[in-house]
Amino acid sequence: MEKAEDQNPQQEEDQVVNPWEVSAKDGGKIDYDKLIDKFGCQRLDQSFVDRVQRLTSRPPHVFLRRGVFFAHRDFNDILDAYERGQKFYLYTGRGPSSEALHLGHLIPFMFTKYLQDAFKVPLVIQLTDDEKCMWKNLSVEESQRLARENAKDIIACGFDISKTFIFSDFDYVGGAFYKNMVKVAKCVTYNKVVGIFGFTGEDHIGKVSFPPVQAVPSFPSSFPHLFSGKDDLRCLIPCAIDQDPYFRMTRDVAPRIGYHKPALIESLFFPALQGETGKMSASDPNSAIYVTDSAKDIKYKVNKHAFTGGQETIEKHRQYGANLEVDIPIKYLNFFLEDDAELEHIKKEYGAGRMLTGEVKKRLIEVLTEIVERHRRARAAVTDEMVDAFMAVRPLPNMFD
Amino acid sequence: MEKAEDQNPQQEEDQVVNPWEVSAKDGGKIDYDKLIDKFGCQRLDQSFVDRVQRLTSRPPHVFLRRGVFFAHRDFNDILDAYERGQKFYLYTGRGPSSEALHLGHLIPFMFTKYLQDAFKVPLVIQLTDDEKCMWKNLSVEESQRLARENAKDIIACGFDISKTFIFSDFDYVGGAFYKNMVKVAKCVTYNKVVGIFGFTGEDHIGKVSFPPVQAVPSFPSSFPHLFSGKDDLRCLIPCAIDQDPYFRMTRDVAPRIGYHKPALIESLFFPALQGETGKMSASDPNSAIYVTDSAKDIKYKVNKHAFTGGQETIEKHRQYGANLEVDIPIKYLNFFLEDDAELEHIKKEYGAGRMLTGEVKKRLIEVLTEIVERHRRARAAVTDEMVDAFMAVRPLPNMFD
Repeated sequence: MEKAEDQNPQQEEDQVVNPWEVSAKDGGKIDYDKLIDKFGCQRLDQSFVDRVQRLTSRPPHVFLRRGVFFAHRDFNDILDAYERGQKFYLYTGRGPSSEALHLGHLIPFMFTKYLQDAFKVPLVIQLTDDEKCMWKNLSVEESQRLARENAKDIIACGFDISKTFIFSDFDYVGGAFYKNMVKVAKCVTYNKVVGIFGFTGEDHIGKVSFPPVQAVPSFPSSFPHLFSGKDDLRCLIPCAIDQDPYFRMTRDVAPRIGYHKPALIESLFFPALQGETGKMSASDPNSAIYVTDSAKDIKYKVNKHAFTGGQETIEKHRQYGANLEVDIPIKYLNFFLEDDAELEHIKKEYGAGRMLTGEVKKRLIEVLTEIVERHRRARAAVTDEMVDAFMAVRPLPNMFD
Repeated sequence: MEKAEDQNPQQEEDQVVNPWEVSAKDGGKIDYDKLIDKFGCQRLDQSFVDRVQRLTSRPPHVFLRRGVFFAHRDFNDILDAYERGQKFYLYTGRGPSSEALHLGHLIPFMFTKYLQDAFKVPLVIQLTDDEKCMWKNLSVEESQRLARENAKDIIACGFDISKTFIFSDFDYVGGAFYKNMVKVAKCVTYNKVVGIFGFTGEDHIGKVSFPPVQAVPSFPSSFPHLFSGKDDLRCLIPCAIDQDPYFRMTRDVAPRIGYHKPALIESLFFPALQGETGKMSASDPNSAIYVTDSAKDIKYKVNKHAFTGGQETIEKHRQYGANLEVDIPIKYLNFFLEDDAELEHIKKEYGAGRMLTGEVKKRLIEVLTEIVERHRRARAAVTDEMVDAFMAVRPLPNMFD
């Protein structure tokens, strides 16, 4: 492995970050510096932002310039190759465990759409219906139904059908993909996956079998209909940093089976309305804004549940100002308010106590409502035929245009 | 599980029988009574032989009437259902780890061919190229090549193409088959497979992932092109008894996911020329008769390497007779000399010392040479197009005729 971190993190660390659990020490904030250090990835500094801007001749995405995507592995190699005229492909995914996505789920897709447009590269999106069938104890049929429903939300993010292949594992596992699964599985011991993922002997073997399924979309040969004869194509994976364990494993195996290591660009977690102590919880609908929420829902949730750094009384607020470090409306605006100048203004005024919490919340409600309404309209336009078209196993002749 | 045997057998028992190792206590003979007791299967007694003869209106196969297939699980249920007019399907398989098969490899196929003809039922044959790629460290390509080569030997056994589907895992895993793999994997903990198969933490996760692959051909829904709408069809698995652990696991899981338990009919191991201490060893070519052996090879191997129960000198032999219990020529004739009267005669004369070891060996050489020559001719007639035809994913409209 790239880093000697692979002992069961649950037993050794107060801060737990893996694909199934994100929790900070003593209910506090996730320490991302510690995470970078522990996982052994690199911080994505300003020089990357500048370089991406130069290479793509367009302004960097708000998630890039504001450090939402804050860590990487070998992103420099991708950019070096791109500068030499070598393209790459993007790989991201989703575990379809719920009907409706929340805003945190959309972040990797919004960013991936930007990368696809900016670099003009193909994209594969894995829907791990098999994973959710096994982890959430959903039936095969229900997992597949959720995968298709989630595909509609993903398509609504605006991906280019001439460059995008969406697949569900239950549909697509087999053939070249399965051969790569076996190649990966041969290189990873049980003790290793216990170290990386914290499995126990009482976990079912479906869990133990799954990591290769998420690993192999990193290799172009898993998609012969797309990348036949392009075994040398590099892969860039935009994802939240909780997925890093899968790709640490993948990167460890890749050179042993003759493939490039995939590169990664990794995001912070989108915080819960109640405060930045981890990811949002699917079990508490008031912890997140869903893409199915009405304007009224959004208004209620932000006003009622958003944790703020404002002071208890207006007098105190005018005197001390808001604590922006813990303020969820400011954090959400940092993700979604595109206007840098306006955001700076709000932070300055709110931090100085000249702007009140209610005013900031009002602006956030406008911003979120607009995003959710826009998503709702886009999703309503996604037909079953479009889902079939994105998920058809087909060549993409113009994927690098 | 059906039996509380599932602790690591390597650690607790002197006699080890699992899919990868067969060794008797202190290099002696396998104790099959103990094995039946330990695995929790049933002995196949004479009443079954009589019943099969009655139901199929043909003489029972030599392997059945001489107790080569000596144990079963729920074979009575298969026969009960058959008597009520309900057919079943057969499932057997091979791990393609070597170019040439030996006679021991042919036994389940010879017997399965008899069952297919006698009961007029369809058959699926699994070539576990993925397993051998992982256990024998063969490349994917080499495992697949061996699978096709072995398919030719299997086809040469005379299977009816209108009733037989041969598949390799690398080709066929996916879709309905993969969905069943996931359903099985969800029901089996890591501790359970350690108990059944004796895996350790240093084994790779490919091994841990494999048991569901061998399990799911037991379920008709894994073959929608054959058995769509026939989810209630029962499955009978003819195999050597070392495969029992896979199907103990499968039978434990089946009712939990809404399927029938597969029935089993299980054979003894075909002994090595050097004596009955386990299965033949692929690493010692002189321990077995291969289907590629020439008449000269067979003569040499039997004369030079077959362990016999004859006495040291002709005088002693005439006086004491041969010890038939340990005599390999007699054991081989028991498998392959179809004429019951002749076999009885040889055993009587040889046991009494009136027939010499050389004479018995001479008859065995004739019998084996004829079988091997017949197989060689049949295999030479198997074309690549026939392999493709047997392995094509297609409906079999006349499979129950």
